[in-house]
Amino acid sequence: MSEIPYKIYLEESEMPKEWYNVRADMKKKPAPLLNPATLEPVTVDDLSHVFCRELAEQELNETDAYIPIPEEVRNFYRMYRPAPLVRAYCLEKKLGTPAHIYYKFEGNNTSGSHKLNSAIAQAYYAKKEGLKGVTTETGAGQWGTALSMACSYFDLDCQVYMVKVSYEQKPFRREVMRTYGASVTPSPSMSTNVGRKINEEFPGTNGSLGCAISEAVEAATSQEGYRYVLGSVLGQVLLHQSVIGLETKAALDKYGVKADVIIGCAGGGSNLGGLISPFAGEMLRGEADYKIIAVEPKSCPSLTRGTYAYDFCDTGKVCPLQKMYTLGSGFMPSPNHAGGLRYHGMSAIVSELYDQGLIEARSVEQTEVFKAAEEFARVEGILPAPESSHAIKVAIDEALKCKETGEAKNIVFGLTGTGYFDMYAYEAYNNGTMGDYIPTDEEIAKSLADLPKVD
Amino acid sequence: MSEIPYKIYLEESEMPKEWYNVRADMKKKPAPLLNPATLEPVTVDDLSHVFCRELAEQELNETDAYIPIPEEVRNFYRMYRPAPLVRAYCLEKKLGTPAHIYYKFEGNNTSGSHKLNSAIAQAYYAKKEGLKGVTTETGAGQWGTALSMACSYFDLDCQVYMVKVSYEQKPFRREVMRTYGASVTPSPSMSTNVGRKINEEFPGTNGSLGCAISEAVEAATSQEGYRYVLGSVLGQVLLHQSVIGLETKAALDKYGVKADVIIGCAGGGSNLGGLISPFAGEMLRGEADYKIIAVEPKSCPSLTRGTYAYDFCDTGKVCPLQKMYTLGSGFMPSPNHAGGLRYHGMSAIVSELYDQGLIEARSVEQTEVFKAAEEFARVEGILPAPESSHAIKVAIDEALKCKETGEAKNIVFGLTGTGYFDMYAYEAYNNGTMGDYIPTDEEIAKSLADLPKVD
Repeated sequence: MSEIPYKIYLEESEMPKEWYNVRADMKKKPAPLLNPATLEPVTVDDLSHVFCRELAEQELNETDAYIPIPEEVRNFYRMYRPAPLVRAYCLEKKLGTPAHIYYKFEGNNTSGSHKLNSAIAQAYYAKKEGLKGVTTETGAGQWGTALSMACSYFDLDCQVYMVKVSYEQKPFRREVMRTYGASVTPSPSMSTNVGRKINEEFPGTNGSLGCAISEAVEAATSQEGYRYVLGSVLGQVLLHQSVIGLETKAALDKYGVKADVIIGCAGGGSNLGGLISPFAGEMLRGEADYKIIAVEPKSCPSLTRGTYAYDFCDTGKVCPLQKMYTLGSGFMPSPNHAGGLRYHGMSAIVSELYDQGLIEARSVEQTEVFKAAEEFARVEGILPAPESSHAIKVAIDEALKCKETGEAKNIVFGLTGTGYFDMYAYEAYNNGTMGDYIPTDEEIAKSLADLPKVD
Repeated sequence: MSEIPYKIYLEESEMPKEWYNVRADMKKKPAPLLNPATLEPVTVDDLSHVFCRELAEQELNETDAYIPIPEEVRNFYRMYRPAPLVRAYCLEKKLGTPAHIYYKFEGNNTSGSHKLNSAIAQAYYAKKEGLKGVTTETGAGQWGTALSMACSYFDLDCQVYMVKVSYEQKPFRREVMRTYGASVTPSPSMSTNVGRKINEEFPGTNGSLGCAISEAVEAATSQEGYRYVLGSVLGQVLLHQSVIGLETKAALDKYGVKADVIIGCAGGGSNLGGLISPFAGEMLRGEADYKIIAVEPKSCPSLTRGTYAYDFCDTGKVCPLQKMYTLGSGFMPSPNHAGGLRYHGMSAIVSELYDQGLIEARSVEQTEVFKAAEEFARVEGILPAPESSHAIKVAIDEALKCKETGEAKNIVFGLTGTGYFDMYAYEAYNNGTMGDYIPTDEEIAKSLADLPKVD
C-alpha cells in the first residue's frame, strides 16, 4: 500500500457517473409519503404540482439502485469536485491516537457546504423541463446560496424567501445570493397571501422557516413556469448527496483502507444520508459491516428523543406527511442554539435505517461542539461549520477511545462545510457567553401531542 | 497531450521542495534597503532586531536561486496545498473566446488567501529561533488571520494590532483570529507608547495601518522573545510566495501548456511576485518570453502613476527605506475604496522588474472590477476577493482581445482568495452605490513631495 497523502483527490475520470439510491437495497423500505388531504400514498402526479416531474419520479423511485448523473450536472460538479478525502494527520498527532482519521471535505465551494450537490441537480431538471425559475426558503442562507449559484449557472430565475430575522441580521449570505442574481425576499412578505396573513396576525414578526416554506410553495404554485425546491430531508436530495459517499468509498478503496466507523452530523439528514448510502448499501447486501453514527444537537434531538411516526414535514403543514423520527412539527429549538441542525424531523431513509439498527445516534451539547471545532481548526487549518463540528466532536471521542484501547481504527467523518458565515456563534463561544439548551421531556411531549392521526 | 481537466492538482510528491529566489537571476538587483538612521545599506544584524535572524538573512539573500523549504513548513503546506490550477472552461464559453484561461486558486484555506504561504514560514523560523511569539498589524484581517493560523500550528503567541475601525466594523475576521488563539488589540491602543501618544493627540481616532505597524513594531522590540512579522512587500515574503508560481509552472508543464500572458493583482506585490517569479526567471535567463501584467486599482496606482525612488515602507517611518514605485508614504487611497490593494508602494523586486520592462502594469476602476467578479462568480462558482478580481478583470479583457483576433492564447492569472468577508463591498456594488475614486495629479504630487532625501 502506498503512503496515504494528506489529501486524496480522485481524478476527474474517477468521479461517479451515477448516483446511488440506497432504497433499492432496503428490504423494508421507508413508509410511503402520504397526501395530507387524502392520507393516501402520494403519486408522481400529486408531487408534480410542486416539484419538477423528473424529481417527483426520483422521489418515489425505490427500485433503481443507480441513476445516471446527467452530463451537464457532472460538468458543474467538475468545477468543485471531486472533493478531497483528507487524512487528519495533524489531529491524530494532537490527540495521540493510534486511530486513522479521515474526513470528506465538502466546503471547497462558494456555497460553503455540500448543499450544492443537490441544488445543481434540481436546477438542471427544472431547466430541462423548460421552467422559468424555482422558489425556495432559506434560514441562515446556506441552501439559498447553493441554489442561487446553481440557478445562475443554468440561467434560471431564483426566488428565495429568507427568514426575516436572518435577512436583517445576517446580510452576508443574502448578498452572496444577490451576487448570483437571486431575488431575496424577507419572510413573511407582503407578496404572498400567506405572508400577508401572517403579517396581519403577528405585526412585526421575525418570521420562521415554516412560514418561509409556505410562502415559497405558494409562490411556486401561483406562478406559471415555477416549481418549489427543497435542500434536505427528501429522498431525491439524499440520492444526489450520494455523490459524497461514492467519492469517499472510491478514495478509500484506492488506498486499500476499510472504514471501521463512519460519522456524520444529522439535521434533515441530507449529508449523513449521502455520506453513508454506499456503505449502508454494503451492509444491507451483507457484504460488509460498519459502525455508523448520526450526530445531532442535544437541543434538537429527533433521533435520540423523538418518536418514529407520520408527521408533517413543514410547520405550515402543506407538504406530504412522512414517517420519520420527529419531535413534532411545532417543535422549535431554543433561539439561542447557534449550531444549526434545527429541523424537527429526520429524512425518512435515515429514520428507517436507524429503526433497522444500521445506524446509531448520539446527541451532543453545543459548547462541546464548538470546543471540538476550535481544536480541529487549530491543527487542521479548516474553520468548520457548527453543523459539521457535531461530527468532529464524535470523531474525536471515538479516536480517544482508540487511544485507551490501542486500536488503530479507521474513522471517517463528513466535514460538510465551513464556518465563515457563523462567526457570531464563534464570537459567543470565544467570549464564554454560549450556553447549552436542552429541551425538557414536557416540551417534547407537548409538541409530539400534535402529531397527525394516521391509521 | 491528454485532455486538460477542470482542475489540475499536482500530486503531493510533485510539490516544490525549494522556494525560488528570483533576485539570484537578476543581473541588475533591486537597490539595497537602507537603514533609516544612517542611510547605509542594512545588514543582517540591523534587521535581526526586528525580524528573526533566518528571515533577515533571506531578506538580504540575492545569490541563492533556491532555498530549501523546511520539512515542517512542507507538512503544513500539505494541509491546503497543492492549490489547484483551474482551467476556466465555463468562463471561456461565456466569453466565446478562443483563448484558454487558467487560474491558480489560492483561496482553499481558512485564511482565504495566499497569505498563509508566508505566514507559516515566518512562524516556523520564529519557533525555530526559540521565540515566544510574534507581533503584526492587520487592516481588514486577511494577513492577521493567516498568521494566527500559522502561530496556532506552532504554538506561538500571536499579537495582532488591528486597525480600530476594522476591529469594530468587521468583527468576523477578528473572531477567526481569536478562534485560532491570537490576541487582537484595536489600534491605536493604550498598551504601547506610540498608541497612547496617538490616542492623546487624536482622541476618538479610527486608527490607520501606519499606526498599527508602529504599535506592532514597538510591541515586538519591547518584549523579550518577540519579533515583528510582515505579510507583503518584503523579499522574504516574495520568496515564500514563489510556491504559487512554482506549482503553476509545474502544472502547466505537466500538460504541455506554454503560458502566453500571466496576470496578477498587485498591492504590495506578494502574490504577483510569487506567481511570476519562475516565469520571470526564465525571461531573465533568456529561456522564454511571457507577457506579464500587474493589475492595480486606479485609486492606488503605484506602478502606473508613482515614482521609482527610495521611500519609507510604513507611514510611521520606522522600517528601512526601500527603492520602489511609490505614491509617497503619506498617500491614502479614498476610504470609500473597497477593493483592497491599498499599499502606497510596491515590492522592490516587482518594482525593479517593472523598471527593467519585464512587467507591464495596468490600473482598473473598482466598479469594473466588481462587474468582472460577479461575471466570474456566476460561471466559475467561486466568489472572488476584490483584490483577486483585479486580475480577473484584465484576464477577461485579454480573452476578449483574443476573440477579436482569433488567437488561442494561454492566459494564466492568480486568483488569490475568496470574498466571503467582503460582502459589504459586494452589497454596495449590488445596490449600485459603489463609486470609483481616482486621485488627482495634485494629490499624488503632494504625497510624493514628502519622499526622503537620499543621495
